[in-house]
Amino acid sequence: MRNTAILLVSCPDRKGLVARISEFIFRHDGNILDFDQHTDLDAGVFLARAEWQLAGFSIGRDEIAQAFRPLADECAMKFEVHFGDVVPRIAIFASRQPHCLEDLLIRQRAGEFEAEIAVIIGNHAGTEEIASAFHVPFRHFPITSANKKEQERLELCELRARSVELIVLARYMQILSEDFASAYPNRIINIHHSFLPAFSGAKPYHRAFSRGVKLIGATSHYVTMDLDEGPIIEQEVVRITHRDAVEDLIRKGRDLEKMVLARAVRLHLERRVLTYGNRTVVFD
Amino acid sequence: MRNTAILLVSCPDRKGLVARISEFIFRHDGNILDFDQHTDLDAGVFLARAEWQLAGFSIGRDEIAQAFRPLADECAMKFEVHFGDVVPRIAIFASRQPHCLEDLLIRQRAGEFEAEIAVIIGNHAGTEEIASAFHVPFRHFPITSANKKEQERLELCELRARSVELIVLARYMQILSEDFASAYPNRIINIHHSFLPAFSGAKPYHRAFSRGVKLIGATSHYVTMDLDEGPIIEQEVVRITHRDAVEDLIRKGRDLEKMVLARAVRLHLERRVLTYGNRTVVFD
Amino acid sequence: MRNTAILLVSCPDRKGLVARISEFIFRHDGNILDFDQHTDLDAGVFLARAEWQLAGFSIGRDEIAQAFRPLADECAMKFEVHFGDVVPRIAIFASRQPHCLEDLLIRQRAGEFEAEIAVIIGNHAGTEEIASAFHVPFRHFPITSANKKEQERLELCELRARSVELIVLARYMQILSEDFASAYPNRIINIHHSFLPAFSGAKPYHRAFSRGVKLIGATSHYVTMDLDEGPIIEQEVVRITHRDAVEDLIRKGRDLEKMVLARAVRLHLERRVLTYGNRTVVFD
Amino acid sequence: MRNTAILLVSCPDRKGLVARISEFIFRHDGNILDFDQHTDLDAGVFLARAEWQLAGFSIGRDEIAQAFRPLADECAMKFEVHFGDVVPRIAIFASRQPHCLEDLLIRQRAGEFEAEIAVIIGNHAGTEEIASAFHVPFRHFPITSANKKEQERLELCELRARSVELIVLARYMQILSEDFASAYPNRIINIHHSFLPAFSGAKPYHRAFSRGVKLIGATSHYVTMDLDEGPIIEQEVVRITHRDAVEDLIRKGRDLEKMVLARAVRLHLERRVLTYGNRTVVFD
Repeated sequence: MRNTAILLVSCPDRKGLVARISEFIFRHDGNILDFDQHTDLDAGVFLARAEWQLAGFSIGRDEIAQAFRPLADECAMKFEVHFGDVVPRIAIFASRQPHCLEDLLIRQRAGEFEAEIAVIIGNHAGTEEIASAFHVPFRHFPITSANKKEQERLELCELRARSVELIVLARYMQILSEDFASAYPNRIINIHHSFLPAFSGAKPYHRAFSRGVKLIGATSHYVTMDLDEGPIIEQEVVRITHRDAVEDLIRKGRDLEKMVLARAVRLHLERRVLTYGNRTVVFD
Repeated sequence: MRNTAILLVSCPDRKGLVARISEFIFRHDGNILDFDQHTDLDAGVFLARAEWQLAGFSIGRDEIAQAFRPLADECAMKFEVHFGDVVPRIAIFASRQPHCLEDLLIRQRAGEFEAEIAVIIGNHAGTEEIASAFHVPFRHFPITSANKKEQERLELCELRARSVELIVLARYMQILSEDFASAYPNRIINIHHSFLPAFSGAKPYHRAFSRGVKLIGATSHYVTMDLDEGPIIEQEVVRITHRDAVEDLIRKGRDLEKMVLARAVRLHLERRVLTYGNRTVVFD
Repeated sequence: MRNTAILLVSCPDRKGLVARISEFIFRHDGNILDFDQHTDLDAGVFLARAEWQLAGFSIGRDEIAQAFRPLADECAMKFEVHFGDVVPRIAIFASRQPHCLEDLLIRQRAGEFEAEIAVIIGNHAGTEEIASAFHVPFRHFPITSANKKEQERLELCELRARSVELIVLARYMQILSEDFASAYPNRIINIHHSFLPAFSGAKPYHRAFSRGVKLIGATSHYVTMDLDEGPIIEQEVVRITHRDAVEDLIRKGRDLEKMVLARAVRLHLERRVLTYGNRTVVFD
Repeated sequence: MRNTAILLVSCPDRKGLVARISEFIFRHDGNILDFDQHTDLDAGVFLARAEWQLAGFSIGRDEIAQAFRPLADECAMKFEVHFGDVVPRIAIFASRQPHCLEDLLIRQRAGEFEAEIAVIIGNHAGTEEIASAFHVPFRHFPITSANKKEQERLELCELRARSVELIVLARYMQILSEDFASAYPNRIINIHHSFLPAFSGAKPYHRAFSRGVKLIGATSHYVTMDLDEGPIIEQEVVRITHRDAVEDLIRKGRDLEKMVLARAVRLHLERRVLTYGNRTVVFD
């Protein structure tokens, strides 16, 4: 937990952006710890992440965004300000398979990322015991085609009541409605158990087996209206051989899913992920 | 170069196959160096590769297949017999990009695989200089939609005249006709510059860039009637970041293409690849 | 859980070994599912693993070893017979860091490997809570230089009383005495948090950081008299950058340690690991 | 080839460094394309790389260093200025094994990195033919213990006469003297055929085989007085199995060596590598 401010910026590229952002920080006595920047010349987009120490910074936390706004407006910047010592509140959605849920809970307990797990939401009751073992509230929202709209409305209430800012789909097997997805743009992270765009949709391990691939993968991405099509945050693969049956793919894939989802959550929580178009910039 | 025989077998699974194959070798005083076997229980298929020393073997080379046939017939085996000291003759097809061609030539010269490169066939004249530097015959077959059928016929003549048994498509940018492909079943190896089945077809690096993937791949496979759909022999990936433009993907991908194609060629030449259905078994 | 027998063999190389082993199985009506074999020509050593279905096998389980012994004696074979449906009993040794312990417990519960975790032995009391959450007996053996000999004696009693056949050191921070280690030859698996032989001994992550390596690793191996020198079962690495501080290496390394240890335990329990000299053969 | 300036800076950490460096560029109408920065808080060291477009920059190329010096002096900076369109001149040293040499020549010809290969220096005559095929001057300096001092002196003359700024040891099997190494600090790149610090020194593949490791590696590093101890630029590994004999390790290792050396050369030539202590920062 660091007493720092983190500024995320994206805007049309132009001269002097690095200088003006860093000058803003320096002028108010901030010491920059990390400055990352990327320019996509083809798209004409500038993206940056700056983290600086707040000790001695001459602007109060609540006034930073306001103080930065004139520069942002001038340069047509979208920007966010975060603080290194504010613990974000997240919700984990789970279904029957517990491995990603357990993995996130253990990592959180071990301090691998800074977050409070505000609630676990399950469409099956089976993961309640795990939630309980980790002393995290569990809410059961069984979903049918008939009740989906209403259940999602209740879930949103639950999330708002608990001030959740990030939703993690930990092998959650329900497809979110467009309404739900659009309520948390770039703030819902899913793990898909294939190397996207290969094997999007259902039963990727079975289809990977049928195709006879020699590597299987997992992909974490932000959820958008288009299933399995959102901006990719992280991917990883592992080698398989002809000796691996579908069950072996599923077993080996679990390790990938856990790691790839955990990395994406950590990167998001450390405010290292920016999106533009359907792409991410990951300042790791 | 080893004075060995290599037997490749595939057949319906049944009891005693390992015993009967190895007994055949042992009875004639062969010393088995490698015995690999795989049973796909779901498909009910048995596949095996045996390599044994010919020194002291009581059957002459030319009689081995015949001596093995009664057992093969009884068990409905498909089988091949190869010899470790027979140098296979291969043809490399190339277009404008030389990296895979050069790579194979250098590896062959370095002794990484045993093969005689009988001919290089190009649909552009530009690789002739490379062929010449390595003292390999070059034949130029420019392809248009009008002359394709005729040119392929001439290519087949060329291949037969040179006793070519394996064709390697080293980033060859023409699609082979069904007639051509079916003349060399499981004996044409292609390199596709993506992690199949993602980005099959044209311009995979551009599409990988657009999709914003975090890893790119390459795939070597046997050519079948269906473009980019043949049995996969080998795949590999490499990590990319938001800093990589399309040209960087192309550059990083070249290393993958070279390695993945070379591995597949080597595995094939060592008779380590069997196919069944649309899958390969790779006994490496 | 499969109703199978597994035979592990190592012996001086000679003609006919594959044939005679498989013929033994076939003659008694066993159907071989997997036959793996490796010959180290330089060392003159033959190693093999055969797994066959027991349904219809004409020898009872208890008589298989005896029936095989004449062949084994003739060929100077060392051999073991195992059964696919016998659940091995293992002990996990842990110290303060719980991640490998938790990981093994979760994998066992998820059915990733077949074993009964008979007891968790800790030199600190802190992991008792984890043991309890998974309903596994916990025994606390604090170690000092004064009491080590006596404590190890008691640990051995505990292990024997519980019929433990495999010991897993899950980041256990005590060095086992030679007496202890020699009581379980090739049956104690350790995880070392470096890519051995680099950074054997203490504080490998700190030393990796100091040396400025670009990859860090983890190594699972059998414990022998020589610290960190036993036969290696599995290794893996992960990329790091200049942005990673020692704490990041420790965090990233945890994922390696968990995976590499779990893979080694699974391979051992499936009887896929043979040793000769200071090397392993892993039939995976 | 880009009409850009590249500034590399390292200095004691203090407030405002990013701001003042970027302000220097902005004030003179430079458009920053890339700004990378790293602060090692423990060591108290700040390192940065800035690349900006020279079109419209108000300072002439020859005056940039002088204009920057007051700021540099004030902050105790070490700095270098490079230009994206100046082609560096490099020398490649080779011995008997040609694979790294050929690989670099092919990559240079393919435009993978911008450099003129000014001369190839061999202690054996065997690589002259390769040099000739690529139209690169070759100089033969056979080394014995008796003539080493004199030969190195002549080599240095050769390098100076050809304005070489980077030396690449492409599996060059002679150890450079301290005098020679100190003439090109951080400007001699070596490839060592192991995952350093494991198996430093002679015959690493043989020793890797003996130890029974499951992965082998290669390491590129700057040459210092201490053999195989210089700052590491890049490392990579590949999986091996019990089936791989020493010759297979050598063959698989060649692919690593080629890739790892080529990556290091490219990173250096793009001015992406800074060193401090015995470590590198690689802004890729």
